[in-house]
Amino acid sequence: MDGERMAAEIAEQPAIFRRLLDDGLPAIQEVAAAINRRRPRFVLLAARGTSDHAALYAQYLAATVLGLPAGLISPSTTTIYGAASDMRDVLFIAVSQSGASPDLIEPLTAARSSGAITLALTNAAGSQLAGAAEFSIDILAGPEEAVAATKTYTAELLTLYLLMTTLAGRHDEDVRRVPELAEHVLALEPRVAEITLRYRFAEQLLVTSRGYNYATAREAGLKLMETCNLVAHAFSGADLLHGPMAMVRRGFPVIAIIPDGPGGSALRPVMDRLGELSADILVVGSRQAVAGATIGLELPPLGPEILSPLLMILPLQQLARHLALLRGTDPDQPEGLTKITRTR
Amino acid sequence: MDGERMAAEIAEQPAIFRRLLDDGLPAIQEVAAAINRRRPRFVLLAARGTSDHAALYAQYLAATVLGLPAGLISPSTTTIYGAASDMRDVLFIAVSQSGASPDLIEPLTAARSSGAITLALTNAAGSQLAGAAEFSIDILAGPEEAVAATKTYTAELLTLYLLMTTLAGRHDEDVRRVPELAEHVLALEPRVAEITLRYRFAEQLLVTSRGYNYATAREAGLKLMETCNLVAHAFSGADLLHGPMAMVRRGFPVIAIIPDGPGGSALRPVMDRLGELSADILVVGSRQAVAGATIGLELPPLGPEILSPLLMILPLQQLARHLALLRGTDPDQPEGLTKITRTR
Repeated sequence: MDGERMAAEIAEQPAIFRRLLDDGLPAIQEVAAAINRRRPRFVLLAARGTSDHAALYAQYLAATVLGLPAGLISPSTTTIYGAASDMRDVLFIAVSQSGASPDLIEPLTAARSSGAITLALTNAAGSQLAGAAEFSIDILAGPEEAVAATKTYTAELLTLYLLMTTLAGRHDEDVRRVPELAEHVLALEPRVAEITLRYRFAEQLLVTSRGYNYATAREAGLKLMETCNLVAHAFSGADLLHGPMAMVRRGFPVIAIIPDGPGGSALRPVMDRLGELSADILVVGSRQAVAGATIGLELPPLGPEILSPLLMILPLQQLARHLALLRGTDPDQPEGLTKITRTR
Repeated sequence: MDGERMAAEIAEQPAIFRRLLDDGLPAIQEVAAAINRRRPRFVLLAARGTSDHAALYAQYLAATVLGLPAGLISPSTTTIYGAASDMRDVLFIAVSQSGASPDLIEPLTAARSSGAITLALTNAAGSQLAGAAEFSIDILAGPEEAVAATKTYTAELLTLYLLMTTLAGRHDEDVRRVPELAEHVLALEPRVAEITLRYRFAEQLLVTSRGYNYATAREAGLKLMETCNLVAHAFSGADLLHGPMAMVRRGFPVIAIIPDGPGGSALRPVMDRLGELSADILVVGSRQAVAGATIGLELPPLGPEILSPLLMILPLQQLARHLALLRGTDPDQPEGLTKITRTR
């Protein structure tokens, strides 16, 4: 019980980024060209668990990169209530590591028969979800054995980024730097292990960010809940000010993910308020961002904010694994969880 | 400090339901007719805090009642990143008690200038949000003074229900029974007060439901966080099985909202799993639903599941108020919160 599998899968991420950029891109470009010929006007995303956070990132990308209205669906409108909608001109994207959850297969199948352009993004090219969709993309992350998803999450993020930028006809060079930057960030693990000690006896924790990295906050919270028996609540900075701030008392543990860019700047009033309340704040961010925090995990410059979710989650995956070990739980196989959740 | 204002506003809800059904309906019908002439094909909802939970209910209604693809937007795509989308054929609905939050006014204004049909649903007919939208509907809840929103939430729910059913050309009689049913449910307050004692020293709590009442779980969690300095995490039953279940230990306090109908039935595997883990479960639901729970709050028959969110939240509002008083905080004016949150 040393969380070997989770450690190995966390470490694999730079190599998977390279694989997607080198081997994965042509297939993504082909699918994007076919989708563009169908001229989608709206984007709907369906996912559960970790993949739901990748879908959240994609929702932001659809708006900022594609300029299309985009929403996350509630799979249960189909699976519970059997609702059928008019889906013409809708690009319906289901994101799932296993491609096996009925609560994605059913809505995708319903969307396809209602006229949607359907795309499955999975780590299982032969899965039922991939088979049910008109288009499918393999995220090329290789078998994931630890129950807590790590490498499939970031592979989903990069695949969605490449898909959206290709759909928009945008080719950028910044994304080429992501594998190397990921190596630099992962190398901060000794500092992460040091910070982990702080949370040995924490019973609850709040994670916050805004914009593209709201997905990072949600995913970090889920990793901590899955692996550490810890109640880790994630809020966007904006939602936090709308109520939940009331539960923050002196010394309340908060992890703030502060990218360089507009998303990070928008967190300023939230950080001010948390400071006034004397919360115990760990800031994950650049040298400038960590100034004034109770404790800081300083990251190197990460390039454009839009790519930062692929990098900022990495130390938080490490934190979840170290904390699980410190608290005596098995990060590879948390009690009571299974790898594939077959909800409807 | 006896939570008088919150108590009064909770008690007002049946009267507000009557007002909306009697005086509010013609204005809703007029707006619905004008919207239908524009033939929307896609629904986007924007809201924050409590109103975001009303928007979540409306997202389900858009799919099940209207048969239109629907999503909740992230207001920050506009306010932080300045993204502009092609919004033709989109019905863009902003839901806000005050109509004063810039993070709704900006996206609504941007959506309108990008071709969307815009609708503001507020409790402030003269607000900037109402003025910025092509259409607006007043939820007629009257001034709300307690910081924790109660009556404006249920007024938003009923208004959205009436709007969606009218847009769909559906006229049902069931909704007429809601004011009286609300009175019956509110009359259970002595039992709610009794149950409250259980949570005197709870530090964290999990709230769950599925389908239409996922909104109820989210809203109950927020009320408890706002008023009781309690970390109350809400999950849809499906998401709970995808990971967070790992944090549930023996005796972990869970509130399960179980409506009669498909949403309640879909909770069965979640309840089984929580039972195996020996969680401390309060079930809010019918006689059948509460059987086997650690503790039950038995509700009278509530009619069709689709209307149950208007009723099932009521005892949870009462619970939040009683618990705040028991824990020595002021439910009318929780520390550190203001009524109008001007996030961007």
